[in-house]
Amino acid sequence: MTGRRGLDRRSFLQGGAAALGGAALALGGRELVEAAGGPVPGGGATAGGAPGAPTAPDDAVGRATEGFRGTRQAGVATPPQASAAFVALDLAGDVDRAALVRLMRIWTDDIERLTSGRAPLADTEAELAAVPARLTVTVGFGPAALAAAGVDEASVSWPAALPPFGIDRLEDRWSGGDLVLQVCADDPLTVAHAVRLLAKDARSFAEVRWVQRGFRRAVGTTPSGTTMRNLMGQVDGTANPHLDVDANLIWREDGSTSMVVRRIAMNLDTWDELDRDGREKAVGRRLDTGAPLTGGTEHDEVDLEAEDEHGLTVVAPFAHVRRARTDDRAQRFLRRGYNYDDAPSGGAVSDSGLVFVTFQADVEAQLVPVQRRLDELDLLNEWTTPVGSAVFWVPPGAGSGEILGQSVLGG
Amino acid sequence: MTGRRGLDRRSFLQGGAAALGGAALALGGRELVEAAGGPVPGGGATAGGAPGAPTAPDDAVGRATEGFRGTRQAGVATPPQASAAFVALDLAGDVDRAALVRLMRIWTDDIERLTSGRAPLADTEAELAAVPARLTVTVGFGPAALAAAGVDEASVSWPAALPPFGIDRLEDRWSGGDLVLQVCADDPLTVAHAVRLLAKDARSFAEVRWVQRGFRRAVGTTPSGTTMRNLMGQVDGTANPHLDVDANLIWREDGSTSMVVRRIAMNLDTWDELDRDGREKAVGRRLDTGAPLTGGTEHDEVDLEAEDEHGLTVVAPFAHVRRARTDDRAQRFLRRGYNYDDAPSGGAVSDSGLVFVTFQADVEAQLVPVQRRLDELDLLNEWTTPVGSAVFWVPPGAGSGEILGQSVLGG
Repeated sequence: MTGRRGLDRRSFLQGGAAALGGAALALGGRELVEAAGGPVPGGGATAGGAPGAPTAPDDAVGRATEGFRGTRQAGVATPPQASAAFVALDLAGDVDRAALVRLMRIWTDDIERLTSGRAPLADTEAELAAVPARLTVTVGFGPAALAAAGVDEASVSWPAALPPFGIDRLEDRWSGGDLVLQVCADDPLTVAHAVRLLAKDARSFAEVRWVQRGFRRAVGTTPSGTTMRNLMGQVDGTANPHLDVDANLIWREDGSTSMVVRRIAMNLDTWDELDRDGREKAVGRRLDTGAPLTGGTEHDEVDLEAEDEHGLTVVAPFAHVRRARTDDRAQRFLRRGYNYDDAPSGGAVSDSGLVFVTFQADVEAQLVPVQRRLDELDLLNEWTTPVGSAVFWVPPGAGSGEILGQSVLGG
Repeated sequence: MTGRRGLDRRSFLQGGAAALGGAALALGGRELVEAAGGPVPGGGATAGGAPGAPTAPDDAVGRATEGFRGTRQAGVATPPQASAAFVALDLAGDVDRAALVRLMRIWTDDIERLTSGRAPLADTEAELAAVPARLTVTVGFGPAALAAAGVDEASVSWPAALPPFGIDRLEDRWSGGDLVLQVCADDPLTVAHAVRLLAKDARSFAEVRWVQRGFRRAVGTTPSGTTMRNLMGQVDGTANPHLDVDANLIWREDGSTSMVVRRIAMNLDTWDELDRDGREKAVGRRLDTGAPLTGGTEHDEVDLEAEDEHGLTVVAPFAHVRRARTDDRAQRFLRRGYNYDDAPSGGAVSDSGLVFVTFQADVEAQLVPVQRRLDELDLLNEWTTPVGSAVFWVPPGAGSGEILGQSVLGG
């Protein structure tokens, strides 16, 4: 947790903040010291803080780090960072278990350095590594990587792909992959630098298959704990399981999990034709607060039985929230998605959507039943189209001296 | 300067900060109150600040606004925001002066609302407008827009395009355009929403020709006043003119200016083959600090005469800094570029570069001579390739009751 510049987030928080005149800024469920009061270029005065008091650096967001070593990989339970890139790679034909071990040895070392704000040994742009900004890199294995490692897929009880759905319009260029890197940080330059370095590391082992970049609100722009909004304007990700109470839904006992990445294109042109009332009925939630149409606030339960004055259910049979919801508490999963907004082509106004990302202990038991229900009926399908899909096994975290994937690769 | 939620940056700074226990955070030359101390989810304690003292919101970055009305458009002298999109549009064949007036009336009203955190009248995702995050939208006119307005290009003494350079490998898909929108904010979702809304506004007048998105370090990640780094790892933009002292280099008397947008692709694969010494010689500056190789700190003058122990100039004849520099103080311009890092294709590791953006009163007197020298000789040309180029006339700002482009369009 200690960055190169010697800022340890925890001890800074516990001991240093008061002395520095800083104040804790709660951002998405984590504690982070937001420091202030450096010199103002142009001779402007600083406001606040006792005159002459020592001031904390104004780059606290950049210095913050997330731990790397542990029984679970970072980037899953980590409060979502503002910027992300998902990079899928195809293995070269000659990559065997020994080659995978070599790649994981390099990646493990480089990820540990990058996430602590230190430049990897082969980093040719070392200065770009000095801003960790809560960088996490999460590595996942596709079917071919497990096969190359000599692992029986069944032994990780993990499907190679989701079953086909009627709503799918999957494109090869956004689907599949033998390995995946999920690279997240509160700064897009940090993400870009880490992606390039790790992709270069893999050059003699694999080729980049696809890259999907995404974003959420920047740090400091919305009150702490705000659920993100997607580009349809909806509050997105309200009903996530609790990271501690529901840990068994997210993780397996050995610290592994699985990651699903689906690219969901939004047809914002036809979505625009729908008025606010129609939009709220399609989702079953209010647009302004994200609260269920049956009342309360964002995190209150939706009342699926409630009827309006005509005796019709308030939440329509086709509403997204009704179709996604279940009384089976086991059919839940952790959503950790990002917006995308790419350059449009062919006269379109925009090319936008959601990189829908989920983590769950068991894809088939938790995610697939929900996706099946949404495939059968969900009014939102009118304006959203899955154009990419991939499933990866996420090995446990690397303990001290271990490499990522150690449990299946050995060292 | 007052956002919808009633936060006036200036008065907040002057009066509210001390009372709120906040501290001024200097970000890129501006003063911004970074407030802290909201509730910490999960019951964590807050650090710093007197117990029980009122706390400021933790969304100060999101609430900050830049003024819109004035004799000069915002987004030029404005300290660069973290996220940007450049959108070029092609006018429909039937757009005449009256149609342009209609479009500018809509854009002017919508930009004024968006930049103050209020949703435009036709905004179908009104909630996304609530986070201005220092949003600015700068509008520029290409040759066809001036022709449609019945304006003689010569009367704005502004070239339709840069002269061709030997290093150019320009692609149509990144070049030209009849209108341009430069949309910048400290939050990428704010940029995406504004771009979509303004592109929709223009739907019956013009078609999107190209969109280029870019980024700099996120707010709070680097110390205030830090010059940005590009994806080659270089400090980029050191020698900018002073906004006040050199105002005549940036603006014309009427408040207009011109904007050049060039897409500069970086060949990071071959750049990687160069060691640090070679890189520093190519640029003429140190990689770690951006200081000239002849000593001092980043903003010190380079000594072009200094010799090493072999009697050779320290800054080589081919070095970028020597070729770009001139004793003619009139040959300067305001650089306000952004990094880009798009998804690679065809097995490449990355597709990265710089959206090189300049503002200057006179393109031909200020920018072209420098570009000519760099075209003749600049070792950096080995690793950089201009693939897009466009020049726009940026009309004066809209005063109260005026529309953008009023001076050439009338009202």
